[in-house]
Amino acid sequence: MKSIIISIGDEILIGQVVNTNAAWLGKELTAIGIPPERVLTIPDDENEIINEFKAAFKKYNVIIVTGGLGPTHDDLTVKSAAKFFKSKYILNQKVLKHVKHIFARRKINMPAVNIGQALVPEIAKVLHNKTGTAPGLLFDKKGRVLCIMPGVPYEMKYICKTGLFPYLRNKFAKRITRVIRQKTLHTIGIGESLLAEKIGDISKIVRKKRDFEVKLAFLPSNYEVRLRITAIAKTELKAKKLINDAVLLLYKKAGKYIYSDDESPIEKTIGVLLKKRGLKLAVAESCTGGLVCSKITDVAGSSDYLSDGIVAYSNEAKKKLLGVKSITLKKFGAVSEKTAKEMAEGVKRRSKADIGISTTGTAGPTGATRGKPVGTVWIGFSDRKNTFAKKFIFSKDRLRNKDIISKMALEIVRQQLTPKSQQL
Amino acid sequence: MKSIIISIGDEILIGQVVNTNAAWLGKELTAIGIPPERVLTIPDDENEIINEFKAAFKKYNVIIVTGGLGPTHDDLTVKSAAKFFKSKYILNQKVLKHVKHIFARRKINMPAVNIGQALVPEIAKVLHNKTGTAPGLLFDKKGRVLCIMPGVPYEMKYICKTGLFPYLRNKFAKRITRVIRQKTLHTIGIGESLLAEKIGDISKIVRKKRDFEVKLAFLPSNYEVRLRITAIAKTELKAKKLINDAVLLLYKKAGKYIYSDDESPIEKTIGVLLKKRGLKLAVAESCTGGLVCSKITDVAGSSDYLSDGIVAYSNEAKKKLLGVKSITLKKFGAVSEKTAKEMAEGVKRRSKADIGISTTGTAGPTGATRGKPVGTVWIGFSDRKNTFAKKFIFSKDRLRNKDIISKMALEIVRQQLTPKSQQL
Repeated sequence: MKSIIISIGDEILIGQVVNTNAAWLGKELTAIGIPPERVLTIPDDENEIINEFKAAFKKYNVIIVTGGLGPTHDDLTVKSAAKFFKSKYILNQKVLKHVKHIFARRKINMPAVNIGQALVPEIAKVLHNKTGTAPGLLFDKKGRVLCIMPGVPYEMKYICKTGLFPYLRNKFAKRITRVIRQKTLHTIGIGESLLAEKIGDISKIVRKKRDFEVKLAFLPSNYEVRLRITAIAKTELKAKKLINDAVLLLYKKAGKYIYSDDESPIEKTIGVLLKKRGLKLAVAESCTGGLVCSKITDVAGSSDYLSDGIVAYSNEAKKKLLGVKSITLKKFGAVSEKTAKEMAEGVKRRSKADIGISTTGTAGPTGATRGKPVGTVWIGFSDRKNTFAKKFIFSKDRLRNKDIISKMALEIVRQQLTPKSQQL
Repeated sequence: MKSIIISIGDEILIGQVVNTNAAWLGKELTAIGIPPERVLTIPDDENEIINEFKAAFKKYNVIIVTGGLGPTHDDLTVKSAAKFFKSKYILNQKVLKHVKHIFARRKINMPAVNIGQALVPEIAKVLHNKTGTAPGLLFDKKGRVLCIMPGVPYEMKYICKTGLFPYLRNKFAKRITRVIRQKTLHTIGIGESLLAEKIGDISKIVRKKRDFEVKLAFLPSNYEVRLRITAIAKTELKAKKLINDAVLLLYKKAGKYIYSDDESPIEKTIGVLLKKRGLKLAVAESCTGGLVCSKITDVAGSSDYLSDGIVAYSNEAKKKLLGVKSITLKKFGAVSEKTAKEMAEGVKRRSKADIGISTTGTAGPTGATRGKPVGTVWIGFSDRKNTFAKKFIFSKDRLRNKDIISKMALEIVRQQLTPKSQQL
């Protein structure tokens, strides 16, 4: 079972748009068991489109086409498909009603040109698009499937999930001989080699047998390491079981470092923990400049556990807003263990929160002082029982530093809120 | 002059990696005057690679290949190129020295496998890669150029800028008959149609003559509109002049709304303005949760003009940290003109700053109250002369709202700091 993804559009060729559709489709088609063997981007040109349809129809079982389905003159995909399949058009009443409805809801008069979107090739199966005006069109001929969809990512994804993928799974059920499932565990604050050491012997995870295979990849980036498990099996059930087994083993060895196994960010993880315990968090930021708070408030409902945040860039603000002592700043400097601790304590006390966290450091790209290279950061933590600060040395890249420091501060909260018994 | 981009790698096909290289190359090749007519992604498979090289060599003047240049067994691009061009290998001493140097600098013993990276096809021109171990390799045969480069984006870009692009410009100088230049002006807070109305007659901007063309595109997204000018001309000089003329005209008509003409974000624009005037800014955030401050501190040197930031999510915090009056919150609610004004005044006064800004609203996806739909936001501004607040109604998408509200708050600062005389 082989597929090809064809993206249509000059804007992709000349780099105005990054082809994220192809990546999403690549991942999903691989999971279904019909991985793409080619991704091809071609211009908005009828001859080119028809020629590539012809070539693809000879070689691939499934041809996925996105883009060029709008109502204007340079949208040629439907026309090309109709010519290629030598099909005449019919007016699809259901699509017309839907398009009219969309315009009515937006309180806009429907331009005449949009009626054209309800004219579909007679032999096409119409895949409903709740999210926009252009439907997906599926052509099933000689055992091969060609499907055209709009290039707008959320429209394309909607049509795939509700129309195309169920169709492919059903049609090719007997011919799809392997299913691929992936899961990624996210860790932070532990290096790749140390993580590998903690995990140790992977022979119980990584296996290759006649009818199944499990792979494990370490994917490091900016002080985070993702563990990607890939399972290839004959059935979805088996693949899921293989994934679950691997996840359990990895949690047993390195569960302490895993903050997410469902692609949700760390701010979501700590939100759940804080809410469950009924605790309030206060944040004092220097080098992260508001990003810790911003991440926390990315989660809907965060007002339940975030009390306040203070961005205290200057020494003045650290003293006045957080109660950091003058002597501390004088003796140890703003980037120090003592300052980080006093910031965390101060914001906790003044906000009457249960937990205070703080960041202070040189985010870069300049600002090094003697003994404190660019990227030196102290993260402070204070709760009812104890107060401490941890030192890190990150890179010279300001934006990358702000991001990882913020995540690391949240990771410290996560670790403190996770019962030791669960930190296997 | 036609080109094709060939990306090699299973990880792109199955969607683990988004092909941003192709977008960057598409933009640059278009600018040079050799726009790509195809972007093709193929697997790490020697036969497939050689077949596509053959096909491409028949049709395109320039073939740009990225990926598959690493030191391991699944990196097949160099091997495939050597076979395709029937060239034997030679050990390039300069490359070997460079690879050794890279490992020495990292204080790592060079694995034997990396010596292979200095073995290059004899007929290839070696394009130096300061940023990594694999050099670019350029094959110039029968008037056509095939160039292979590593897939790591910054390595690929380095080789393009220092080696490939100068080579192409020089070799095809006489055959490149048109140069394309683009510039994008960024506006915020004005709708597409109103902006078009302000700009009015575009016949002095958008022109198509025998030997040049100027295009103008309105690109709206999340309450911002970008104006993209494209100039096509015979020489770079002419194209640049056409762009400049169009920019001047657009500034004349809508300069008031343009916050950037060099892709720099709005926080950079206001940083320059605040620094020039020697003014200090303080920020009080509710619904943006720290994002305004975080954006400001994304700019190195922002400590020169940012005094403090307060994230006051709760009514308690608004009263205690910002001095918002109880009666205001009771009578008008937290999401109100009066509260926004008191927040901006309060943070300005307490931080002894020159300017205070504030955000308060319902970021979504839920939280509507009577008369205040989700997405209702008040942005407050206070300086020595006056205090005001503006109302906006954005969408229900929390992250998009946080982003646009933060930008809008900065835009209000920008407008207030821009002399009326420049707001043509």
